Amino acid sequence: MAPTEAIIITDKDEMRKWTRTIRAQGHTIGFVPTMGYLHEGHLSLIQEAHKHADRIIVSIYVNPGQFSPNEDLSTYPSDFEGDIQKLKSVPGGVDVVFNPKNLYDYGNSQIGNGSESNQEESEEMVVSCVEDKGMGHETWVRVEKLEKGLCGKSRPVFFRGVATVVTKLFNLVEPDVAVFGKKDYQQWRIIHRMVRDLDFGIKVIGSEIVREHDGLAMSSRNVKLSPENRQKALSISRALSRVKVEAEKGQVNCRELINYAIQTIDEAGGRVDYAEIVEQESLEAVETIKRGVVFCVAAWFGKVRLVDNMEIDV
Amino acid sequence: MAPTEAIIITDKDEMRKWTRTIRAQGHTIGFVPTMGYLHEGHLSLIQEAHKHADRIIVSIYVNPGQFSPNEDLSTYPSDFEGDIQKLKSVPGGVDVVFNPKNLYDYGNSQIGNGSESNQEESEEMVVSCVEDKGMGHETWVRVEKLEKGLCGKSRPVFFRGVATVVTKLFNLVEPDVAVFGKKDYQQWRIIHRMVRDLDFGIKVIGSEIVREHDGLAMSSRNVKLSPENRQKALSISRALSRVKVEAEKGQVNCRELINYAIQTIDEAGGRVDYAEIVEQESLEAVETIKRGVVFCVAAWFGKVRLVDNMEIDV
Repeated sequence: MAPTEAIIITDKDEMRKWTRTIRAQGHTIGFVPTMGYLHEGHLSLIQEAHKHADRIIVSIYVNPGQFSPNEDLSTYPSDFEGDIQKLKSVPGGVDVVFNPKNLYDYGNSQIGNGSESNQEESEEMVVSCVEDKGMGHETWVRVEKLEKGLCGKSRPVFFRGVATVVTKLFNLVEPDVAVFGKKDYQQWRIIHRMVRDLDFGIKVIGSEIVREHDGLAMSSRNVKLSPENRQKALSISRALSRVKVEAEKGQVNCRELINYAIQTIDEAGGRVDYAEIVEQESLEAVETIKRGVVFCVAAWFGKVRLVDNMEIDV
Repeated sequence: MAPTEAIIITDKDEMRKWTRTIRAQGHTIGFVPTMGYLHEGHLSLIQEAHKHADRIIVSIYVNPGQFSPNEDLSTYPSDFEGDIQKLKSVPGGVDVVFNPKNLYDYGNSQIGNGSESNQEESEEMVVSCVEDKGMGHETWVRVEKLEKGLCGKSRPVFFRGVATVVTKLFNLVEPDVAVFGKKDYQQWRIIHRMVRDLDFGIKVIGSEIVREHDGLAMSSRNVKLSPENRQKALSISRALSRVKVEAEKGQVNCRELINYAIQTIDEAGGRVDYAEIVEQESLEAVETIKRGVVFCVAAWFGKVRLVDNMEIDV
């Protein structure tokens, strides 16, 4: 059982020391990495973690490494005090909140918001918001095939940044189990593969999507939707649910299903970034549904990009 | 103190379990990764490890991930029984020899020697000897700047393979301290940086080069030299020693020093791959020696490529 109030740890060495002490006492450690601004979706991940471990660490850290300079790092929502309050409400609680200030500060480098980037360099390649000049951070973990499709097409540094920061967090937190939301389906599959390929001694659990009462998948970005766009955004889950029903009734032609979803979202006033039906593990596109697949969608509503997906098991 | 004979562990889970059990008993773990065919150089790394930890793990594993299909994976020398005998001679001994069969076998992929590679693909990119199709290994760790120069120029997958296998080994062995030879200077710096950037809880130690009585840096590849080429190969250490003396006497013009080394090796019958004077930490080339540098050389003698280096502290 966790104490009523979580310990807040900001120091890297202190974090690792906590885990090692607790593990030496015979406990198992469950880990839920987050970027904060917690909602019911995050809290469900913590509840899942409680099923697999008896001590729970939640990290709250907005990772600059997964944002490119033209993305919304500086406006990513945050509410640390609110997060701490929400964590108190989780049954079983949380033992530690790991809230590092800057995971890329090695005493001789600085994080920028992109504005310090060398312009000549940034014209040639898409860089992340991590300063990588001089003695700065230069080590990246890539899951080379899984990172390419879906969100990887429009966000070329995103999964590199995710895999790298999760590696760092795993090395600092040293958990036995880590829980990721299936809402970010590609991210979950990438971390799952990375853990296998790099021989981390960590079990990765995928936790089901939590939706608002009207179907919208929970996301920290939802607060940035205008009331009007929030209404339009319901078209995603509506389209996915309908596609799932149709597929289960026997419609196995992916092109037809995808076109239906794109049309539904378009008509509602969204702008589809991608809509794809892919194999659940390899994330390779399929033309005809023969076994379990997942329908993945990303779409813009105003200036907010939302992702959602639905597994279809036939 | 280690037992007289090391335990041989081949299973990944068993390896991690051993470390965790030993650590829970309050011991510290020193790790020396090797590709086997041990010589005095390796044994000196183990002796170094004994200074920092009270339990010692040596891994013997020829990593296919750092060889490209046109390199010498299949002919890399090995002598496991001989290695075990040599390890018995080390003062303090070795507790565990970790000798995994195939670190890239996840139950659904195969290692090839390059011959199974898709020819169309391999014409477009240099691939390693690790099968990366289907559900095969696809996660790679790159230290993006340090991996580019020196040996990285002629061996484009080498350091990606080294950083990745060392990450895997670190995750399986979970040591407190790991010792690398400065003979592979770039490799040592890359691992050192990777450990910082990925927040491994491991101290990386660089151990000094061990040389034969005549100056040749010890290497598992030395046995592949013909007697004639072995004689010619002495030109490397001879050139490096002379350069160090000259630099310490005040010759700070790197072009002059490099030309002298190249000429010495050429005249002896070697073929220089590169000869560079670089900063010790960033490995960036310098034109004039102002502070500590390292002179790095790679050269071919017959079909054997040797590397060597010398730190110059002024």
